[in-house]
Amino acid sequence: MSKNRAKGGPSGDAPVTAPPRLGVAQILAPRAVAVIGASDNVAKFGGRIMRYLTKHRFPGRILPINPGRAEIMGHRAYARITDAPGQVDVALMAVPSERLLEAVRECAAAGVGCSVIMTTGFAEIGEAGRRMQDELVDIARAAGMRIVGPNCMGLISPHHALALTSSLVLEEGELMQGEIGLISQSGALMVSMYDRAHSAGIGFSGCVSLGNQSDLEICDFLEHMIEDAKSRAICLYVEGFKAPRRFLELAARCRERGKPLLMVKAGRTEAGVRAALSHTASLAGSYAVLEAACRKCSVLLLDDVDDMIRTADALLRFGAPRGDGVCVFSPSGGGASIGVDRLCELGLRPAMLGPGTLARLDRDLLPSFQHNPIDLGGRRDPNTPTVAGGILAALADDPDVAALLIVLTTVPFYAAVTGEIGQALLACGKPFALVVTPGASADEPRRVLSTLGCPYYDNLDSALRVLGTLMESRKLAPALPVEPLPRPSDLPDASVLARIPEGRMTEPETKRLVARYGIQVSTEQLCPTLQRAVEAAQGIGYPVALKAVCRELAHKSEVGAVKLGLTERRGLEDAWHEVMAALARSLPGVAIEGGLVQAMCAGELELLVGVRRDAQFGPIVAVGAGGVLVELFGDIAIALAPVDTAHARALLERLKIWPLIAGWRGKPALDAERVADIVSRLSWLAADLGERLVELELNPVMVRSTGEGAVAVDARATLTAPS
Amino acid sequence: MSKNRAKGGPSGDAPVTAPPRLGVAQILAPRAVAVIGASDNVAKFGGRIMRYLTKHRFPGRILPINPGRAEIMGHRAYARITDAPGQVDVALMAVPSERLLEAVRECAAAGVGCSVIMTTGFAEIGEAGRRMQDELVDIARAAGMRIVGPNCMGLISPHHALALTSSLVLEEGELMQGEIGLISQSGALMVSMYDRAHSAGIGFSGCVSLGNQSDLEICDFLEHMIEDAKSRAICLYVEGFKAPRRFLELAARCRERGKPLLMVKAGRTEAGVRAALSHTASLAGSYAVLEAACRKCSVLLLDDVDDMIRTADALLRFGAPRGDGVCVFSPSGGGASIGVDRLCELGLRPAMLGPGTLARLDRDLLPSFQHNPIDLGGRRDPNTPTVAGGILAALADDPDVAALLIVLTTVPFYAAVTGEIGQALLACGKPFALVVTPGASADEPRRVLSTLGCPYYDNLDSALRVLGTLMESRKLAPALPVEPLPRPSDLPDASVLARIPEGRMTEPETKRLVARYGIQVSTEQLCPTLQRAVEAAQGIGYPVALKAVCRELAHKSEVGAVKLGLTERRGLEDAWHEVMAALARSLPGVAIEGGLVQAMCAGELELLVGVRRDAQFGPIVAVGAGGVLVELFGDIAIALAPVDTAHARALLERLKIWPLIAGWRGKPALDAERVADIVSRLSWLAADLGERLVELELNPVMVRSTGEGAVAVDARATLTAPS
Repeated sequence: MSKNRAKGGPSGDAPVTAPPRLGVAQILAPRAVAVIGASDNVAKFGGRIMRYLTKHRFPGRILPINPGRAEIMGHRAYARITDAPGQVDVALMAVPSERLLEAVRECAAAGVGCSVIMTTGFAEIGEAGRRMQDELVDIARAAGMRIVGPNCMGLISPHHALALTSSLVLEEGELMQGEIGLISQSGALMVSMYDRAHSAGIGFSGCVSLGNQSDLEICDFLEHMIEDAKSRAICLYVEGFKAPRRFLELAARCRERGKPLLMVKAGRTEAGVRAALSHTASLAGSYAVLEAACRKCSVLLLDDVDDMIRTADALLRFGAPRGDGVCVFSPSGGGASIGVDRLCELGLRPAMLGPGTLARLDRDLLPSFQHNPIDLGGRRDPNTPTVAGGILAALADDPDVAALLIVLTTVPFYAAVTGEIGQALLACGKPFALVVTPGASADEPRRVLSTLGCPYYDNLDSALRVLGTLMESRKLAPALPVEPLPRPSDLPDASVLARIPEGRMTEPETKRLVARYGIQVSTEQLCPTLQRAVEAAQGIGYPVALKAVCRELAHKSEVGAVKLGLTERRGLEDAWHEVMAALARSLPGVAIEGGLVQAMCAGELELLVGVRRDAQFGPIVAVGAGGVLVELFGDIAIALAPVDTAHARALLERLKIWPLIAGWRGKPALDAERVADIVSRLSWLAADLGERLVELELNPVMVRSTGEGAVAVDARATLTAPS
Repeated sequence: MSKNRAKGGPSGDAPVTAPPRLGVAQILAPRAVAVIGASDNVAKFGGRIMRYLTKHRFPGRILPINPGRAEIMGHRAYARITDAPGQVDVALMAVPSERLLEAVRECAAAGVGCSVIMTTGFAEIGEAGRRMQDELVDIARAAGMRIVGPNCMGLISPHHALALTSSLVLEEGELMQGEIGLISQSGALMVSMYDRAHSAGIGFSGCVSLGNQSDLEICDFLEHMIEDAKSRAICLYVEGFKAPRRFLELAARCRERGKPLLMVKAGRTEAGVRAALSHTASLAGSYAVLEAACRKCSVLLLDDVDDMIRTADALLRFGAPRGDGVCVFSPSGGGASIGVDRLCELGLRPAMLGPGTLARLDRDLLPSFQHNPIDLGGRRDPNTPTVAGGILAALADDPDVAALLIVLTTVPFYAAVTGEIGQALLACGKPFALVVTPGASADEPRRVLSTLGCPYYDNLDSALRVLGTLMESRKLAPALPVEPLPRPSDLPDASVLARIPEGRMTEPETKRLVARYGIQVSTEQLCPTLQRAVEAAQGIGYPVALKAVCRELAHKSEVGAVKLGLTERRGLEDAWHEVMAALARSLPGVAIEGGLVQAMCAGELELLVGVRRDAQFGPIVAVGAGGVLVELFGDIAIALAPVDTAHARALLERLKIWPLIAGWRGKPALDAERVADIVSRLSWLAADLGERLVELELNPVMVRSTGEGAVAVDARATLTAPS
C-alpha cells in the first residue's frame, strides 16, 4: 500500500471503489466459507485449514475449491470459486503468491465478501511485493471485496465455531468461547496467544490476525469488537498503526463502553522498529509518544503478549483492585521473601495488615510470623499444613489487602494444600495471582487447580506484571471527552502563524512568537551594532547576557556565541568582539543578524518545555528537567498536544524533579501554576501550527517561587512551509 | 544463637567445645545414616525420609531409629540411637520440637558426627526458640557433633546416592549427578530448585539446606565446595550471613579456583528484610552494600533462584560469552520483534551481522529480512521452513554474534523445525538461550529438545536474565589479591584517631581530620566572636560564607544557620546576628561554638563523598551527585573501603553524571583524578577508623576543571567511643 493510500485510511483512494459487500461482523460470523487451494493432505496449508474447519464443526457451508477433487473431507469440492453455489462470505487463500492475484480476481468476480490471505511475499518483502499488494487491493476494492492480510494466519471465531487458520494449535482441544477479543498483526503470535490461553482455560470472543493490513486493519476490527456484546475486553498486538488518530478515537470509545483495551506494541527499541518494519511493513513510530497517547486514552500497554491475555482475563474476572495493597503468601519463607522483594521492586505496595486480621492469624500463626508476607512455615502446629484456607480468608478480609500474591513452593501434601489454597482464593472475592512454577512435583497441584477452575501462573514475572497492570488499571483516566479541549480565549488568532516563513527561527523570532501566546520571555533587544548593544544594556540594566543571533546556528553555547553575566560596558564590548569572532570562526561567511542583549534572569530551577510533531500522533508537548539533567537522567514527561493546565500540572508531577518544584526541604514551592500555564500555551501553539510544526523548544525556562512566575530564557524552533 | 555467639563465628564461644567429629565433606558422603523417628508411613516425615533414602539406593548403612519397630523398609530398626551399632556419621531428626533436645543429647552421647535437624520452632519463632536453639548447639559442641539446621530440609548428595530429605520432589525420577553445588538457607527453595533443575535435566554435585545456621553455616559448605572437584559452579540462596567477611574471603578463593559463584539474596527490600528475619532469623543487611561486596569478589547476584541454577548450568556448558553481541532468531516476525525489544530494554546489544554472514543468509532469506533480528518468515521459499539450521549456523559463525536468543512460536512442522533448531544450536559452539513457551502445541517440540539434550526456557524473562548474567560474567573482576591493598605512604599514622572523642563532630573538626588525610578543604576560620569573624573575613578575603558551629546541629542550612556570598563587612555582621538568632530559635539554650568564616568556593560540579560502617561488611565508601541530585535520582556508587584511586575512578565512571566529569559538550573535563584521590583517601580514613566509624560525609565537594582540584566545602561525621 502506497503512502498516499495509507493516509487515505481504510477506504483509501483506489481508482475505483465499490461499496463493501459485507461488514467486519459478518467476516467473523460467515454463513459460507470457501477454501481456495483446499486439500486432503494435512501436511499442506489447504489441508489443515479444511481439517480445522471441519474438526471444530463450522455450522455454515464449507466450499473446498480444488480443480482436481470432487470432495474433500466430506464436502463437495469445486474446480473454481465461480463454480461454487450461493453467496460466499469469506474465502481463505491457501495458494502460492504467484497464483494469488488470479485467485483474488476470481473471488472478486464471484462476489466473495472477504478474502483472507495467508500468502506471504507482499509489502513485507520490499517494493516489488508492495506493488503486487497494491494491485490486489485495487482488484478487491473495485469489487467491494474486503481483504484480511496478506501475510496473516487467518481468524478464529469460537462463538461461531469457526477456525479459519492453518495453525496446528487448532489440533488440540475444542474451541473455547470467551469474552476477550484479540486482534494481532502477527499471525504467529495470535496462534501462540490462543494456544497458551487455551492451556490456561481462557477463551475468546474472536481472534483475528491482520498481517500487512492491506485493506482491513486493526481499527476496523477494534470498532467491531467495541460494539460486539460478546467482547468484554479487547487485546491488541500491534506492529504499526495505519490510522493512529482513528485508533485514539476508538480507544476513547472503548473506554466509554467500559471495555478494557490492552495492547502490546512491537518496536519499542530501535532494533525492534527495524524488525517490525520488515515483518509486516509497519512504521513503528516513537514508543514514548505511543505511551503518552495510550495514557490519554486509557489503553493498558504491556510488554508481553501472554501477560496481556492473562491481564484481560484477570480484569474480566476480578475488575480493577479496590486499593493498592498486596498481601504475599507462601508455604515457605523463601517464597515469601522472594515474592515480597520482587513485589516491592516493581513499585507495588505490601499491604499493612490490620488488628482484626492479626487477631485471626494469631490462631494459626506464631507471633513473629503475623505480618505481610505470610509464611505458612510459621504456623503454630507444624503438622497441620491445612490451615492455609483460613489464613487466606482472613487476609482477603483485611481492608488494606486489595489483591493477593501467592507463591507456591513444594510442601508436604502439595496437591491437597494447593487445592485448599485454590478454593480459598476462588471464594475470597479479591483479585489474586497464584504462582505454581512447573516441575515434576507441581504437575498434580496444577491439575488440581485446573480442575477447580482456579487460574495460576507459571512464573513470578508474569504474575507480578499482571498484578502491576491491574493496579495501573485503577489509575486509568476517565474517557476522553468527545468534544475537543476548549481553546483558551486569550490565545491569539492562529492566522498570525501564516506569516512565519519555513525553516529555522532565530531566538528572538521564536520568543516573539511564544510571547504572543502569553508566555513570558526574558527582557531583551536585538542589536545590529555594538553601539546599539551598549545602549540596550544601559536601558535593560546590567548585568546582561550577550548572544550572537544567526539563523544557521543551532547551538550557540557550544561555539562560544554566548556570554553571560556581563556587569559593565567594557565587559559587554569585549564580549561582543569575542562572540562575533567565535561565530566567524565556526561558521565562516555566515550572515549574523546581530547581538541579542538580554537581562540576566535568575530562577530557582531550569526546566525545558518543548513541542514537536510526531508523524503518527501529531503535536506532542514535553516538559522536563532543563540543562544537562534531561540528557543524563531522561527526566521528561510528554503528552499529546494540546493539554489544559490541569493536565500540564499532572505532567510536572510525573517528573523526578517534582519535589524541587513542590518545595524541597523547607524551601519555598516554585511557581508550578505558571509552568503549567506555559506548557498548556505552548501545546496550543503546537496544535495551531499543526502540520507546519517540526519542533520548538524553550530551554531553559527559569522557574521562580510561587507567584513570581517563570520566564523563557532561550528558545529555538523549526517549521515547514505553509501548505 | 546469641549475638555474642554469632560474632564468634561457627566455632562460637560455647562453654565447652570438643573438636568436630567430622568435616563437611563427610556429611555429604556419610558411611552410615540414622533416621531418628523413622517410620513405615510415607505420610509422615520419618516415612518419607526412609523412602527416599532407600528408593535412591543409598549404599551406606541405613539405621532407622524407632522404639516400636524391629524393621523399617527392609532395614533393621533400633529403639534408640545408642543401640545402633558402629559409627553413625549423620543422624536426621524427624521428631517434634518437644522431643528434639533429648534426641540431640542422645545423638551426642552416641558419638553421631552430625545431626541434620528439620524440626522448626527455634530462633525463627522468637526469644524462647532462640534459647532452645542455643541449648542444642551447646550440647552438640560439647560433644564435637555438628548441626545442620534446625528449620532446614536436609540435603541431597547425588554423587553419593544420598537423598536425606522428606520433600516429595524426591519421589520422581532418579538422582541426577551434576557439577553444580547448591547451598540454600531455605529448605523449600532448595527442593523447588532441585525439582525444576531435575525437570530441565540439570544435576547437582550436592544440595544442602541450612535453615537457621545454628552451627554449620553457608560458609562451611561453601568452603567445602570450593575444594570439592565435583562442584564446578556454586549457587547460594542466602537470607543472612553469619560471617560476612569470611564469605568475602571464600568468594575470592572461589574465583581464584575459576569456579563461578552465584547468589540470590533475600531481603532486597524492607519488606523482604522483615520476611527473611522471621523466616530463618537472619539479619539481612543493606542490599546495596551486598552488591558492592559481590562486585568486589566477582559474585554473580541474581533475582530468581531458578535463573540462578540455569545460569550456573549455562556457564558450565558454554563458559562466558566472548563478546557482547546477541543475535535474535524466531520463526515469526512477532517473536523476533518482541525478542529484540526486550533484549535492548535489558541493556543487551543486538549484534551487527557482517558481510560474510549476510552473503550466507542471502541464500535462504529475502533481502529485507537479512538483519538481526532474524525472522524465519522472511525465507525465500515459504514452503521450506527447514532452513533454520543453516541460518543458525551462519549466525553463530558471525564474529559479532557472541550469543543467540531464539524465541520459538508455533510453525508448521513445529516439532521438526524445533528439532532442527536444537541440533543447530547444540552444534554451533556459542552460548544460546532458546525459549519455548508451554502450551498444548509446544509439548511435542519440548519433548524433542529434551531428547536431544538441548536446554530451553519456558519464558523470555528467564532466558533474557540468564543471557544478561552471562554477559555480566564477562566483566567479573579478576580474583581479589590475597594481600590487602597497600596503604598509601603519605597517609598519617592512624593513631591520631585515638584522640577524637565519640559523638558528632562539628564541621571544622571533621575538616581538620580529613585534611590530615590529604583532602583539600575550604579555607576557613572558626571565630568565637563577631569581632574575630570580621578579622577572619578580612584575612580570607570577601566574598565569604558564615556558618554557625554547634555540635547538636546536624543540618545547618535547614534552620537558617548558613549565609553564603557575603561581600562586605556590613553583610557579615548582619549575617552573624541572623545566624545566631536562627540557631537560638531552633535549638534554644544550645552551646554555640562560634561562627565559621569560610572562603566562597567555586566549582563546576558538586559531588558527595562519604563513608560509613556497614554492620555486616564494615567500612563502605560512597560517591555521588551532590546537592539534591543524589536524593532525587539516587545517582551514587558504593564500594567496600578501602579503595585505591583506580577503583575510585571506576566508581566515578559508574555515575550517571560521569559525562559531566568527563567533559560535557565541549566543556573542559573536570578533575576526576583529584576526586578519585579524595575518595581513596576518605576510604582509608574509614578503614583506619574501623569499628569507630558511624558515618562521615563531605557534601558538597566542589570539583573544578582538570588540574584545578576539588575541595570539600562542608563536612560532618559521627563516631563511636574508642574501644
